[in-house]
Amino acid sequence: MSSQFTVEKTQHPKTKPDQQNLGFGKHFTDHMFLMNYTAGEGWHDARIVPYAPLSLDPAAMVFHYGQAVFEGLKAYKTEGGRVLLFRPDQNLERLNISNERLSIPQIDEALVLEGIKELVRTDADWIPTAEGTSLYIRPFIIATDAALGVHPSPQYLLIVILSPVGAYYPEGLKPVKINVESEYVRAVRGGTGVAKTAGNYAASLRAQEEAEKQGYAQVLWLDGVEKKYIEEVGSMNVFFKINGEVVTPALNGSILSGVTRRSIIQILQDKEIPVVERRISIEELYEASVNGTLEEAFGTGTAAVISPIGELNWEDKQITINKGEIGQVSQELYDTLTGIQNGKVKDTFGWTFEV
Amino acid sequence: MSSQFTVEKTQHPKTKPDQQNLGFGKHFTDHMFLMNYTAGEGWHDARIVPYAPLSLDPAAMVFHYGQAVFEGLKAYKTEGGRVLLFRPDQNLERLNISNERLSIPQIDEALVLEGIKELVRTDADWIPTAEGTSLYIRPFIIATDAALGVHPSPQYLLIVILSPVGAYYPEGLKPVKINVESEYVRAVRGGTGVAKTAGNYAASLRAQEEAEKQGYAQVLWLDGVEKKYIEEVGSMNVFFKINGEVVTPALNGSILSGVTRRSIIQILQDKEIPVVERRISIEELYEASVNGTLEEAFGTGTAAVISPIGELNWEDKQITINKGEIGQVSQELYDTLTGIQNGKVKDTFGWTFEV
Repeated sequence: MSSQFTVEKTQHPKTKPDQQNLGFGKHFTDHMFLMNYTAGEGWHDARIVPYAPLSLDPAAMVFHYGQAVFEGLKAYKTEGGRVLLFRPDQNLERLNISNERLSIPQIDEALVLEGIKELVRTDADWIPTAEGTSLYIRPFIIATDAALGVHPSPQYLLIVILSPVGAYYPEGLKPVKINVESEYVRAVRGGTGVAKTAGNYAASLRAQEEAEKQGYAQVLWLDGVEKKYIEEVGSMNVFFKINGEVVTPALNGSILSGVTRRSIIQILQDKEIPVVERRISIEELYEASVNGTLEEAFGTGTAAVISPIGELNWEDKQITINKGEIGQVSQELYDTLTGIQNGKVKDTFGWTFEV
Repeated sequence: MSSQFTVEKTQHPKTKPDQQNLGFGKHFTDHMFLMNYTAGEGWHDARIVPYAPLSLDPAAMVFHYGQAVFEGLKAYKTEGGRVLLFRPDQNLERLNISNERLSIPQIDEALVLEGIKELVRTDADWIPTAEGTSLYIRPFIIATDAALGVHPSPQYLLIVILSPVGAYYPEGLKPVKINVESEYVRAVRGGTGVAKTAGNYAASLRAQEEAEKQGYAQVLWLDGVEKKYIEEVGSMNVFFKINGEVVTPALNGSILSGVTRRSIIQILQDKEIPVVERRISIEELYEASVNGTLEEAFGTGTAAVISPIGELNWEDKQITINKGEIGQVSQELYDTLTGIQNGKVKDTFGWTFEV
C-alpha cells in the first residue's frame, strides 16, 4: 500500500465479464487513478477512486482543441500468480515526450508508475488469466480549462483506466491483408506523428474505414512528403524480413517510437538475427516481392504484440508475403515477447516490473 | 418558437459579465443546444437545456482518439435591436465537410440552424451591444462511445454553446508581429487541414507558444511538404496586397476554407479591387518587401474578422509591412464586413440571417 495516494474503494463492485469473450477495451474495472494539474500549483491530488463518469464543462479544451495524450501498456498474471507490468517506465517516458509536443506539463514518471501499480493491485482480481488475455492499462491526460482561446490549458486531468482484454486474434496469429494508402496521410515531419496524441488517431479513421470496406484489415501509411516511404501500419510500427535481414523504418520525425518496436529490435539483436532501421520505399518492397526476397512482414504494438501481414495491396498490385502464412521469425518473436510478458519465458532484459 | 425541440429553461440564471471586459470565450450563457447520435437510430433528441457540465465515461472516444469537429460563428444585436447571424449556413455546410473527413455522420444542417436560432433567441439578452462585441456561437460534435478500439464511434453528441465576446483587439486594429514557422507544420495534403477538427489546433499549440515567448503574436504556417509556400496565420487565413493586387493562398487540400476568407474575396470583387487565389512562397513575399511592392498583410477569421500584420520574422530576416501601420484596404474591409455583420452597412450579399 502506498501513502502517496488516497484510495477510495467502490461500494458497488461490477460483475466481471466472461474471460472467453473480452474483446478489446470494452470492459473497465472498478477503479481509476486521477490526478489534477493547476497552473501555479502543479500536479496534485493523486488518488484512486471508483470508476465513474467524468464531469466536464462543455467548453473544456479537450473537446475543442484536442490537447490530449495517452499511453497503452499491459499487466499480466503469471501461472504462479505474480502480476507483471511490461516496460511501464518506457511508456511513461514517452508520455512526457508527447506532453512536450502538445504543450502539456511534464508528469512525475515515478509517481504515476506508483499510481498505476497501486491501481493494478486494487483491481488485481480483474486481471484475466485465460491464454492470450491481459489487463490493458490506459493512462491519458486531457485539457480541462473551460475557455475557447487557442492556448495551452492551465488545467489538466490525468486518468488511468484498466480494461481486461482478450487475445487480439482469438483464432490465433492469422496474417491480415493491408491496403497501401495513397491518398490520406497519417503524419508529416514537424507535425505530431512522434507524439501519442488523440488527433493522430482521429486523422486515421477515414482511411481505415475505406480500407475495411474494401476487405483490408488496416492501412499501410506512406510518408506525407513524397508518399513513397513506409511509415506505420494502422496504429502499429512495421517490420519486413528481406533476404534474411529484418528492416523497419527509421524514426524520422513522423513515426511513433513504439515500446514493442524497440523490444522487438532488442530481441532480434539478442537472437543474432540481422536487424536494421532505415528508410524503406514501397517500390523496394514490391521489387523484393517480385524477386522472391520479401520473406516476412508484421506490425508491432501493445494491443496485438505481433500482427503478421499476409498481403499488401498497392494501387493495382498485390504483394503476397510468405504465401499468406505467418513467417518463422514472426512466430518466434511473438512467442518470445509474449512469453516474457506473461512470465513463461525468463526475462533476461529486465523488462518486467512486478506489482 | 419551434416545435422541433424541447426547451428546458434554467431555474438559476447566471449574472451577466461586464460588457467592457468580456475577453474571448471566457463567459457562457444560461443554455445550450444538445443532440445525440446513436448508430441505427441517427441524430435524435434535439433539445435546449440549461448550460451544465457534460458527464462522459472516461473511455469516451473523444478523450483518446480525438474524433471531434467544431465551428465558430457570431450573432450581433443591431442598433435597432434586431439579432443577426452571419452566414450560419456556410458554417454548417463546413461542419459536414469536417464530419466527412473525420468519419462522423452528417447532420441535418437546416435542423441545427433552427436549433442555433432558437438557442440565440432563448439567450438573446446575453448578446452584448458595446462597440466590437458579439455573441460567439460554438457548435461542436464529440465521439462519446466508451470503448478503446480505434474505429469511428457509434455514438456522438452535438453541442452548441454561446459566449458573449469582446472586441478581439480592445485597443483597435493594431498590426501584430508574426513569426514564420520553419520547424513545426500545421497540416499536409492528405491530412486533416481542410477539416475544423480538434487535433489541428492541438498540433499548433507548441509553435504558437514558442512564437509568443519570442514576442510574436502568431505563427505563419508554411506548407508541410516543401516548407516554402504560405498556408495560414495562427488559426486564420491570410491575405497580402502586392503591387495593387490582393492575393491569398489557393485552397490546396491542407488549408481551411474560411467563411471570412470567402466573404473578403467577395467584398474585394464587389469593390473591384483585384484579388487572386494562388500559391505564394515566402521568398516571393520577401522579395516584394525588398522591392517595395508588399503593401498590406492581414489574417481573416471569425474571432478577429481582420487582423492586420505589421511585421513578419522569417529566419534572420525582418519584413516590415506598411511601416507597421494598418493598410487602407485592410481597414476598408474590416469596416465593410463588421458593418454588414452588425447591421450598420446594408447587406447586399444576403449574408445576414435574422433570428
